[in-house]
Amino acid sequence: MRAIQITEFGGPEVLTVTELPDPVAGPGHLLVDVSRAGINYADTHQAENSYLSESTLPMVPGGEVVGTTPDGRRVVALVGTGGYAEKAVAPEALAWDVPDGVDDVTALGMIVQGASAWVLLRRSVHLAPGESVVVHAAAGGVGTLAVQLAKAWGAGRVIATASSKEKRDLALELGADVAIDANEPDLKDALIEANGGRRVDTVLEMTGGTVTDQSLKALAPFGRLAFYGMASRKEPSPVRPATLMSHSTTISGMWLAHVFQLPGDVMRAALDELFGLAASGRLRVVGGGEYGLTEVRRAHEDLRARRTTGKLVLDPSR
Amino acid sequence: MRAIQITEFGGPEVLTVTELPDPVAGPGHLLVDVSRAGINYADTHQAENSYLSESTLPMVPGGEVVGTTPDGRRVVALVGTGGYAEKAVAPEALAWDVPDGVDDVTALGMIVQGASAWVLLRRSVHLAPGESVVVHAAAGGVGTLAVQLAKAWGAGRVIATASSKEKRDLALELGADVAIDANEPDLKDALIEANGGRRVDTVLEMTGGTVTDQSLKALAPFGRLAFYGMASRKEPSPVRPATLMSHSTTISGMWLAHVFQLPGDVMRAALDELFGLAASGRLRVVGGGEYGLTEVRRAHEDLRARRTTGKLVLDPSR
Repeated sequence: MRAIQITEFGGPEVLTVTELPDPVAGPGHLLVDVSRAGINYADTHQAENSYLSESTLPMVPGGEVVGTTPDGRRVVALVGTGGYAEKAVAPEALAWDVPDGVDDVTALGMIVQGASAWVLLRRSVHLAPGESVVVHAAAGGVGTLAVQLAKAWGAGRVIATASSKEKRDLALELGADVAIDANEPDLKDALIEANGGRRVDTVLEMTGGTVTDQSLKALAPFGRLAFYGMASRKEPSPVRPATLMSHSTTISGMWLAHVFQLPGDVMRAALDELFGLAASGRLRVVGGGEYGLTEVRRAHEDLRARRTTGKLVLDPSR
Repeated sequence: MRAIQITEFGGPEVLTVTELPDPVAGPGHLLVDVSRAGINYADTHQAENSYLSESTLPMVPGGEVVGTTPDGRRVVALVGTGGYAEKAVAPEALAWDVPDGVDDVTALGMIVQGASAWVLLRRSVHLAPGESVVVHAAAGGVGTLAVQLAKAWGAGRVIATASSKEKRDLALELGADVAIDANEPDLKDALIEANGGRRVDTVLEMTGGTVTDQSLKALAPFGRLAFYGMASRKEPSPVRPATLMSHSTTISGMWLAHVFQLPGDVMRAALDELFGLAASGRLRVVGGGEYGLTEVRRAHEDLRARRTTGKLVLDPSR
C-alpha cells in the first residue's frame, strides 16, 4: 500500500510517500480500507516528536481515519498513528459506526475536533445556559464546532477570535455574536469590550503564551478557562493558585486522550449527540481542503502557517 | 455597647475589649441584637490585614452574626466587619431568616462554612455521584460540613485529612470513609493509597504549600482541585497550564465573597438546602466552643495553633 512514512523527526520535509506492506489487524483490532484520513495540527507535533505522547520511528503519522472494514461496516476510528495510508488498523474500542447521511469529512471532523469541543464545553468548563463563551481560533477545527455547539446549547454571547477577516467572517456565519482579532495589543480589554463591558464566563483556549495569560485575566468571578493546545508553541505564564482564589477563577487542562480513562462511554455519548446534531443540520463540519499523499507536506506547511480553515483531510488514493 | 476593637494590626494581642457607641442602621440595613457571632479563621487575617480584602482601622472584627432585629426577626447575617459586638449592622441583602429548629451555632455554621462547602462541591469541582473526594482539614468548619455534604450527595470514597487522631476520628464519625494525616511525607502517594490505589477525582484544599502541590499530583484525569484557603500561610507552587493539559486536570480558586456577583440568588439556594438538611438531621454543625469577649484572644490563638475543631462562636454578653 502507499503511505506517508517518517524516518527522522522534523518539519513538513520529513513526510515522505513510501510503499509499505499492508498492516495486519491482530485480535481486538479492525483493518480499515481508508477512504479519508484526518490531518490535524497534532500531527505536526507527532512529526517533530513534540506531542504530549512520545513518537517512535519509523512512523506513519495520522491519528484518525474513516473507511470500511472487510465485513462492510463504515467506521470512523482513532488509530494513534498509521492514518496517512491506504490501509490502517484500529482498536475495536476506538472505532465507531458512522450513521447514514454523515459524510467522510463530517465523520472525521467529529471524532477529534467535535469530541474535543463537546468535552471542553460539557466537562471542562461546564457551560451553563446564558453564559458568555470565548472561542479562540474560532475558524479552526475545534473552534468552528465549539461556536456552533455553544449556541445550540444556549450560551449567551459567543465571542470568537481569529487572525484574519476571512476567518472572523466564518465564525460569525457559524453563529458567533462577535469576532475579534486575537492579536489585539490588549486582549483582556478587547475581550471584555466584546462582551459588552462585562468579564467573560468561559474561555476555550488553544493558542498559549499571552493569549492564555490575557484571557485568564478577563474571566469573571467563577469564570473558567480550558486550555487544550499551544499552537503558538509558547507556554503561558505559570498560574498562582492564590491568584485563582482571589478572583474565584478556574483553569482546566484538557487532552482528549484522557476521555478514554473516564467511567462510562463518554466518546459514544459525545459522538451520538454530535452525529445527531449534524444529521439534523444544526452542526456542520467546515471543510478545509483535501490533499493527496504527495500534497501532505503542503498541508502541514499550511497548518503551521495558520493558513487553513476547517477540517483538512487526506485522500490516500492519490 | 461592648465590643472588640482593633486599633493596630497584629496577632491576637491586638484584640481589645472596648465600650463603643451602638451602631446605627442606615437605609437598606438592619440593626441586629447579636446573640452569637461567628469566629472564623479569616478573622485572624482581618486582624493582621493579610486577608483577600484590605482592612481599615479602627475596626471591630468579625464577619457574621446571628440575632434579632428590632421588629423581632431572627436572622443570620454577613456583616463584613463589626461582628464581635453586642450590636451589629447588616445589609438587608446579606441577612437571611433562620428557620425554627435551627440553633445559633448551626445558623452561624452554615452562612460561611456551609455555603463554602456547598459552593465548592457544586460550583467549583462539580462533584458527580460516585466520585472520590479528598477533604483536607476535614475537622475544620468547612471540612466537617463538606464531608457530610459529599456523602449526602452520593460521593464515592470520601478521604479526610486532619492533623491529629482526634480530628481524624471526628471526620470518620461524620461519614468519611478513611482519614489520613496530611503531614504524610509523601502525601500524593498517601492519597492514592487511601483511594484504593486509584488517583482521586476531586480535592477541597485550604492548606497551601506542599499539600496543594501534592494533591494536584494525585488527581485522576479530569480531576479537579478547589483551592479556597492558605492556612499554612505558604503559597503552593505556581501551576503550568501545559502540565494541567498533559494530565487533563483542573484547579479552581474560590472566595465566597464572589458568590454575590453570580446571577441568581446562589446563597439563598445554598442556605435553603443546608438548613433543610440540618432540620432533617442529615447535616450537623460541629460546635467548637463558645468564648466570651474577654476570651477572644485565646480563640484566635487556638485557631492559629490549629487546636480547634468545628465552629467557634462568640457570646458578646459576657
